[in-house]
Amino acid sequence: MKAKVHVTLKPGVLDPQGKAVSHALQSLGFEGVQEVRQGKYIELDLDETDPAKAREAVERMCRELLANTVIENFTVDLEG
Amino acid sequence: MKAKVHVTLKPGVLDPQGKAVSHALQSLGFEGVQEVRQGKYIELDLDETDPAKAREAVERMCRELLANTVIENFTVDLEG
Repeated sequence: MKAKVHVTLKPGVLDPQGKAVSHALQSLGFEGVQEVRQGKYIELDLDETDPAKAREAVERMCRELLANTVIENFTVDLEG
Repeated sequence: MKAKVHVTLKPGVLDPQGKAVSHALQSLGFEGVQEVRQGKYIELDLDETDPAKAREAVERMCRELLANTVIENFTVDLEG
């Protein structure tokens, strides 16, 4: 079973990486870009085949390692 | 209009960051994780309201800045 995890900064948390991308896009001549926010995308291949157990395990991984829940939100999508 | 961009390493390209996450998960006692691949997730707020034009612009941004197309694939999803 495959898990797709998105880790994004909470609204209001400053995103210097996104700001840098935004400025770089402007320098390259791209106009009309209002805001850029950058997050992480993680794909995990799991042995677990039960969706409920897989989700619980991946959410624990997010809380313990993948995301900093003080400043970041995460979402988990399961596939197959 | 909002664009959601995923940038992922092409299959076969070594992913040291993913490997590090995989080892860290094992050290924390998480078992049954076969493979971890880490990519980038970028959200862009665009002034453009025409989906075709927005997609074209964002794909150009990916090729010119957001992704290294030698080793990375990208996907663009548009919203609202």
